[in-house]
Amino acid sequence: MAGGGQVSAAIDEESYARAAFSYLAEPGDLRLGGLIRACGAASTLAAIKAGELPDPASAGAAAMRAMRRWRVRLAEVPSPDEVADFCRTGIRLVCPGDPEWPAQLSDLGDGQPYALWLRGRADLRFSCLRSVAIVGSRAATAYGSYVASELAASVAARGWAVISGGAYGVDAAAHRGALGADGVTVAVLACGVDVPYPVGHTELLDAIAAQGLVVSEWPPGANATRLRFLVRNRVIAALAPGTLVIEAGQRSGALNSARHARDLNRRLMAVPGPVTSDLSAGCHYLIREWQGTLVTSAAEVIECLSPIAAGSAQALPAALGRDALDQETAAVLDALPARRGMGPGRIGHQAGLEPGTVLRCLGALAAAGFAERCEGGWRLRRT
Amino acid sequence: MAGGGQVSAAIDEESYARAAFSYLAEPGDLRLGGLIRACGAASTLAAIKAGELPDPASAGAAAMRAMRRWRVRLAEVPSPDEVADFCRTGIRLVCPGDPEWPAQLSDLGDGQPYALWLRGRADLRFSCLRSVAIVGSRAATAYGSYVASELAASVAARGWAVISGGAYGVDAAAHRGALGADGVTVAVLACGVDVPYPVGHTELLDAIAAQGLVVSEWPPGANATRLRFLVRNRVIAALAPGTLVIEAGQRSGALNSARHARDLNRRLMAVPGPVTSDLSAGCHYLIREWQGTLVTSAAEVIECLSPIAAGSAQALPAALGRDALDQETAAVLDALPARRGMGPGRIGHQAGLEPGTVLRCLGALAAAGFAERCEGGWRLRRT
Repeated sequence: MAGGGQVSAAIDEESYARAAFSYLAEPGDLRLGGLIRACGAASTLAAIKAGELPDPASAGAAAMRAMRRWRVRLAEVPSPDEVADFCRTGIRLVCPGDPEWPAQLSDLGDGQPYALWLRGRADLRFSCLRSVAIVGSRAATAYGSYVASELAASVAARGWAVISGGAYGVDAAAHRGALGADGVTVAVLACGVDVPYPVGHTELLDAIAAQGLVVSEWPPGANATRLRFLVRNRVIAALAPGTLVIEAGQRSGALNSARHARDLNRRLMAVPGPVTSDLSAGCHYLIREWQGTLVTSAAEVIECLSPIAAGSAQALPAALGRDALDQETAAVLDALPARRGMGPGRIGHQAGLEPGTVLRCLGALAAAGFAERCEGGWRLRRT
Repeated sequence: MAGGGQVSAAIDEESYARAAFSYLAEPGDLRLGGLIRACGAASTLAAIKAGELPDPASAGAAAMRAMRRWRVRLAEVPSPDEVADFCRTGIRLVCPGDPEWPAQLSDLGDGQPYALWLRGRADLRFSCLRSVAIVGSRAATAYGSYVASELAASVAARGWAVISGGAYGVDAAAHRGALGADGVTVAVLACGVDVPYPVGHTELLDAIAAQGLVVSEWPPGANATRLRFLVRNRVIAALAPGTLVIEAGQRSGALNSARHARDLNRRLMAVPGPVTSDLSAGCHYLIREWQGTLVTSAAEVIECLSPIAAGSAQALPAALGRDALDQETAAVLDALPARRGMGPGRIGHQAGLEPGTVLRCLGALAAAGFAERCEGGWRLRRT
């Protein structure tokens, strides 16, 4: 919904149309992305419902075939009220233009997500500003799991969010390391954020949502498929300023994420391992052939990413002290309740600020560690 | 001796003076190297014997102190006949300008060896054309020893010589790997070529001499010291077109060799290992900080070195077939005996060629695998 507040509200037309597309089309459909960019989401949806294309000029045979494909699942799209109702179950929708939308996703061009479904307490945009994607083999060795967990814990303890895919092996070790260090971690899934997949990670995904975020391009209830994992990988790579591969065979899906990171001009890093281990072969390949940076510690990861993250982090308050906050942000901070959450509307009323300003300030306060999302909206973060 | 043949002969004045300097001064003495370059070895030796400097213009107080230091060991210098007699014990002297002298040592400037003492059958200059220095920790792990031995065997099997320092750990594994593959390996020692140091390597050094070369800047009988190992390292780095570090702690002597290789514009390579192993930390440092190439296999080592080695290998026959040999080289090949060795003088007589031409051709034939040194001089190589 527009604004990203957690309290249910009427959903605006554009956001609703984007939510609908997450049901109708597979993410990354460049033709649909181009139509949304050119004609707007609501107009495109209205045209498709009418069995037409929003831009008659581009209505060739292939475009008509695509349109008919999108129409197949029209019956599955929930109503605007049903979409708004997801908020009551702790799921929220974030769309391009919302304050929580990570602007760096526009690097994906027409392939950027139509919308993202989120479950969890952290602010997606600000979490990703200082973050690293940690990916690797599902069949990680004890060495790979250990290194993933240690590195994730160390970067998380220094205030960097850990983004991964929620899978077994390196992904799980990275999420767990960040959680154990009381850090923020983001799981980007290839299924709905309410789908416990893999089933053995039900508790892990709940723990990630409680402390960070579970994110998906697919709507609630969607199942993971082989192809969806590959499509999802581009989002992991795009969200973080850099991707770190910890263990990966020569044909690992982690190399697919790494290729996206390279193509998106993100930093690419890899942890070396024994040359006698097939699972380190992919890491060595990245270093040799793709000029990936060899890293052996959290300090080296942060050294590699800081020049980039520093640029995008200029949106953050210069220092973490209250004195460094601008007047509006300080007013929002004063309005925040200590325990039970408050919605952005009431916060704005108390602080005497416009809703857009309130959301910008809340994001900055979340990133600076002053505020956090909770059930009723926002509150002061416990220190 | 001039010419590098193995049969004893009167030693020329310049070579004798260089042999004498290997007794009088520690290798790498830039002041002495400069005097030899400017005034010649024989004149410099004569002046020092007379308590003078060969170049009065540069006779400052520091130069006079150095000269007095060189004079301290004058009594230890053997006579020309005694130096020539070393040949009977299988030790030969090679000096700048000799056909067997590796021209690339001039990259060391005035720090290049005064002379090299050799024990063994291979031709030093041609062995080094296609070679790799493999160095690493004396306290190698099972992983490091295994990788050193495997890589050395693989590069040696493809006709590349393995240069190392004859020490425990990575050095020994590399030498043994090359020997096991019937390849050429060169041990550059920090003591005399007849000194079994470390004593546990007596047999290994003999095996290296039998199949390759044991080399030193220090004269027969000299003992190894801590400082000499570091001075020796520059020769290992200079001889090979590239240096490969297999396991090295952050303060390992192998990093000293690597630094020389870097400073000499040689290729620098390192084998990665677990980031949890202190002995791989030096390798990862080389890759991160000195732009060392990460290598995981013999093919990658050769890929890294071939562009360089190819340049210096233009002296080799274009193909290994007899048809590719030039007339003079073919004549020398025809003159070679199958079993008992023949001296270069007799070979030249039979082939109707000048001694210098004979030695050039013998070197080329050795490098191409047609000829080998043996007790009596040279013979056809058993195939």
